[in-house]
Amino acid sequence: MMQDKLSVKNLIAIKDLQKSDIRLILDTAKTFKEVINRPIKKVPTLRDYTIANVFFENSTRTKLSFELAQKRLSADVINFASSSSSVNKGETLIDTVNNILAMKVDMVVMRHPSVGAAKFLSERVNCVIINAGDGTHEHPTQALLDAFSIEDKLGTCEGKKVVIVGDIMHSRVALSNIFCLQKLGAEVMVCGPTTLIPKYIESLGVKVSHNLIEALNWCDVANMLRIQMERQNVSYFPSTREYSKQYGLTKNILDNLQKEIIVMHPGPINRGVEISSEVADGMQSIILQQVENGVAVRMAATYLLATHQQN
Amino acid sequence: MMQDKLSVKNLIAIKDLQKSDIRLILDTAKTFKEVINRPIKKVPTLRDYTIANVFFENSTRTKLSFELAQKRLSADVINFASSSSSVNKGETLIDTVNNILAMKVDMVVMRHPSVGAAKFLSERVNCVIINAGDGTHEHPTQALLDAFSIEDKLGTCEGKKVVIVGDIMHSRVALSNIFCLQKLGAEVMVCGPTTLIPKYIESLGVKVSHNLIEALNWCDVANMLRIQMERQNVSYFPSTREYSKQYGLTKNILDNLQKEIIVMHPGPINRGVEISSEVADGMQSIILQQVENGVAVRMAATYLLATHQQN
Amino acid sequence: MMQDKLSVKNLIAIKDLQKSDIRLILDTAKTFKEVINRPIKKVPTLRDYTIANVFFENSTRTKLSFELAQKRLSADVINFASSSSSVNKGETLIDTVNNILAMKVDMVVMRHPSVGAAKFLSERVNCVIINAGDGTHEHPTQALLDAFSIEDKLGTCEGKKVVIVGDIMHSRVALSNIFCLQKLGAEVMVCGPTTLIPKYIESLGVKVSHNLIEALNWCDVANMLRIQMERQNVSYFPSTREYSKQYGLTKNILDNLQKEIIVMHPGPINRGVEISSEVADGMQSIILQQVENGVAVRMAATYLLATHQQN
Repeated sequence: MMQDKLSVKNLIAIKDLQKSDIRLILDTAKTFKEVINRPIKKVPTLRDYTIANVFFENSTRTKLSFELAQKRLSADVINFASSSSSVNKGETLIDTVNNILAMKVDMVVMRHPSVGAAKFLSERVNCVIINAGDGTHEHPTQALLDAFSIEDKLGTCEGKKVVIVGDIMHSRVALSNIFCLQKLGAEVMVCGPTTLIPKYIESLGVKVSHNLIEALNWCDVANMLRIQMERQNVSYFPSTREYSKQYGLTKNILDNLQKEIIVMHPGPINRGVEISSEVADGMQSIILQQVENGVAVRMAATYLLATHQQN
Repeated sequence: MMQDKLSVKNLIAIKDLQKSDIRLILDTAKTFKEVINRPIKKVPTLRDYTIANVFFENSTRTKLSFELAQKRLSADVINFASSSSSVNKGETLIDTVNNILAMKVDMVVMRHPSVGAAKFLSERVNCVIINAGDGTHEHPTQALLDAFSIEDKLGTCEGKKVVIVGDIMHSRVALSNIFCLQKLGAEVMVCGPTTLIPKYIESLGVKVSHNLIEALNWCDVANMLRIQMERQNVSYFPSTREYSKQYGLTKNILDNLQKEIIVMHPGPINRGVEISSEVADGMQSIILQQVENGVAVRMAATYLLATHQQN
Repeated sequence: MMQDKLSVKNLIAIKDLQKSDIRLILDTAKTFKEVINRPIKKVPTLRDYTIANVFFENSTRTKLSFELAQKRLSADVINFASSSSSVNKGETLIDTVNNILAMKVDMVVMRHPSVGAAKFLSERVNCVIINAGDGTHEHPTQALLDAFSIEDKLGTCEGKKVVIVGDIMHSRVALSNIFCLQKLGAEVMVCGPTTLIPKYIESLGVKVSHNLIEALNWCDVANMLRIQMERQNVSYFPSTREYSKQYGLTKNILDNLQKEIIVMHPGPINRGVEISSEVADGMQSIILQQVENGVAVRMAATYLLATHQQN
């Protein structure tokens, strides 16, 4: 019999989830994807439920996706951005969130630059927490939407081979994807320059390659990570052009592979750097489907966590 | 028989509209003006319709007006400001908007500093676009609300004489107004220092004057443009005081005209520069009515475009 | 018989209120506190009512509290922050607000750095105004929620002794609290270094102490004001550490008092400066209750002002 509630009260990290939790979220997301493709894209489920989006880092795309997911569920939404917050006045994170909760908010979706911020909070405050990215650690809803997108295209993640290309070291997307795909039975490889691949990564049961063509010929799905120029204080590769030449995905490369693969990207895209425009807009790309699926997956996670206690 | 749908799918420029489109919007706006003056100012028409306001330039007043128009129609509203956006991370305009659309947004209202940005988008993405100002090019809803305000006061634009005073060169308001008023049968004159009037303007069938008194004695309506100090990198006139002395509208000037004229201003006002406080707050000013009418006109345009396909 | 409507049309200053107004707001807030603690925390009362939050100063906590209060009452909410506003383009305060009102907004909640800004506006524009803080002058809803929190804990303010500790000179919270508590029959003392206590304060019938222990032994309630480092251009005390040593409230001090007192703080807290973490999180602290009560009190004030004319 299918599990009908999550084993967790918060969504902090894919690492904490059981396979059955992931299945429940992905299966629920299928229903919500139907909902958002109907003329009437809204359900009244979370009317009378208040959600605060607390973002200590800019993230238009993720915040917009959560906000739309929340509005489609008819929740009341409050937005809180660090730049305009009392955090600037020296208040602690817990004080800030406790204040929001004292106003009777039911759920907090939080993005924070520090590893572990969401977990730290979830142990100290009394409400549902969804981690929308904590430093270089995890970004669980991104991994869930990526898995959903693969299943949507290939039917299942079980037995599929996924390569994640780029800056694995600084990527919360990579880490969450690795855990999620492995739990769903996929094989994962990471590919990039030595300087951008952490030493411990093989201990997670992940293959490593430094050769893009080799990696692509192995995989069914390639997830091309964004080169986050704005995050790097030191230089991990000679130049963007150099990186692009070795790890950028072009149509020429795709056409010369021995198989047809699926191309993903978490966005925003640096066209011409990690991925060429032709590939990003090509038939094998499911980048915009990922965005669409993101709203459905976030509706599912929000709904399941919000109704967890009543179940 | 009255036209009951627009000939366009997007509202990019007044230049693209037929006279019958303008009439349909203005007549529909009349109904909505009644709605927003009732105790219950809201209609459920666009419940289940999602609109994203995507502003790459600050514009409190226009954004607020659109947002209120959308809420009065019961649409779901998502706000997206460039300062907090992934545009800063090097993403292209089309990628940004396609991402928003992938989240199943039905309409995008966009302001952008570049001429042609709204048109460029409308040719490449699959949703309804309203141009809320593109660089120095067009600002169609402002022209529509100005025409509505003139009709509201004088009964018609047909045969009326309108002078637009100020920085015609850098004004999208001026260009949109010229097209709109001419299509409705009004005569248009522009008035200002030579440096602020583009050479091609007479080819549009517009009269030119460099003498404010002469222009005011000719017109029925004077639309006093804002001197946009923040836009000018070079100086087009000696000083604000000099400008004000030659082209500023004062009560003394108004009282000495041979006729009674109507005074308009798109706001925000520089009191004491292009218009004196006495005139701005005087009996002949319809500045605040313009603001009120703006909500009604934007409701009409939004409603007509949103329901275009169903008609 | 209980008064059933306010004697004022706007909420500008506690000084303007009669005791019966304060009673009506606090008694109404009791009902709303029940509402926000129910599973369904919303009432449809102000559906079809539009409120603009116009904040010329950052204030996450107060704005969030108002916004939640407004949404719980089902009002339509528009947010307007100075940083993104045409105020930067040289527009006057009245023009800005008149523009908002011309768009048919029913109520404006305004925070402004200048003393008297809310009153100035209320005399010139035609809508309901709630002052959410005007410079160092008043912050009426904070005083009301503080009084509500004392009544909630002690049953009444009548005859209670309240000491306000800290920077009385620059605090709108202090001034509003003094007026509110006195009208409700409480005795008020202020406590802090000479440089932070205005000369005129005794003329308001307020006791003054420069000794924290003495003040605490006298009172039933201590309201520990935040040291607002960001507001002070000149230094009113040698160092934060010095201030903390003389006026910071620690568990040791609390435990050695001759009586048990209640501890309040308007937030955000500087832990370790004006209040220690142990005290802030301790049994005698009602800091988070203040935040919760804030939403109920703001719902009450908003509701009573919004329905004033219909009564």
